[in-house]
Amino acid sequence: MENDNTTSNVITNLITEFSKLPGIGPKSAQRLTYYMVKITKDQAFNLSKAIAELKEKILSCSECFNITEQSPCGICSSETRDTSIICVVEQPIDVIHIERTGVYNGLYHVLNGVISPINGIGPENLKINEFFQRIFSLQIKEVILATNPSMEGEVTSMYINNFLSEKNIKTSVLARGLPIGSDLEYTDDLTLVKALEGRKLLE
Amino acid sequence: MENDNTTSNVITNLITEFSKLPGIGPKSAQRLTYYMVKITKDQAFNLSKAIAELKEKILSCSECFNITEQSPCGICSSETRDTSIICVVEQPIDVIHIERTGVYNGLYHVLNGVISPINGIGPENLKINEFFQRIFSLQIKEVILATNPSMEGEVTSMYINNFLSEKNIKTSVLARGLPIGSDLEYTDDLTLVKALEGRKLLE
Repeated sequence: MENDNTTSNVITNLITEFSKLPGIGPKSAQRLTYYMVKITKDQAFNLSKAIAELKEKILSCSECFNITEQSPCGICSSETRDTSIICVVEQPIDVIHIERTGVYNGLYHVLNGVISPINGIGPENLKINEFFQRIFSLQIKEVILATNPSMEGEVTSMYINNFLSEKNIKTSVLARGLPIGSDLEYTDDLTLVKALEGRKLLE
Repeated sequence: MENDNTTSNVITNLITEFSKLPGIGPKSAQRLTYYMVKITKDQAFNLSKAIAELKEKILSCSECFNITEQSPCGICSSETRDTSIICVVEQPIDVIHIERTGVYNGLYHVLNGVISPINGIGPENLKINEFFQRIFSLQIKEVILATNPSMEGEVTSMYINNFLSEKNIKTSVLARGLPIGSDLEYTDDLTLVKALEGRKLLE
């Protein structure tokens, strides 16, 4: 009974909500909550509003399944992008990462996951059929399979590649190799194997 | 221009807001934002609402300056707490930590900071005068100075102790020594010095 009085409900409630976020443990949730206590009402409302607005305004693009505020999204409806090349990624966040590089100007297709039998996720749970349909309707010349270099990512890429191999479409995967700034000594064996296999002749 | 279309404004806005939180870097802010995209509307609104409610309902207790939903707070208005002993802490979060131990049943006084000349924080910026006034109005027999074992915390405790030394009030500080579960080999020198100085005779 006494303890119920000492911590306010709104405090414990916010600690609980913060704890549900990925990578936020109970201690961090507590620290974040007391940070919210300290900042101004306006500062706190900005975060609260940003979360609410996200859920109110966000849509899935009817073409590429990236998240967007209007469907089709800015990339799919752009007149300056190369619509003959399409990059297949696992998640919306991957689109941002690739866009930031500034070297790609084609379309995207977001699978919204990867094939993962252990987790009961098959091709039918992803936007793979939608991708195959898009291939037909668009004049695609090249598909870049940019799933993550994980077991599931590779399986998903292979599944899509099997389908594409019969069509007359160039298909590529992102290069595997040493990440820039890495140290050979600390590189895992598989990455080193891929780096050796993918070595390039110097001209 | 193109790039403005690729990332939705509500996404970049939420990433910015998450980045402002302590301990949340740009990468974590991005991860949290995309997590918010994935969860249900209800789950996201729970967090949004919890933040808004905190700022709407939270008050500073007029007695101890702890955060509370009603002033005076549950501890100050409790009839079962020992009002002859008061524990001085830096922040509201410290009250929770001490309450959790379950071994303390007195009152609290939250300073809302520490004396820190480099940061321009003097005694007048803290709830120190309010504390001295409370000492007079309450029949306090013991003051526990529970500021952090940092330079600023020690200075703040000393400042309060100087005032109390003339009054006939028992004043104590939390014991300094080896934390439970620690390893002598990895203990810093100052802690070891404090542990030696504070050694207890076995009976």
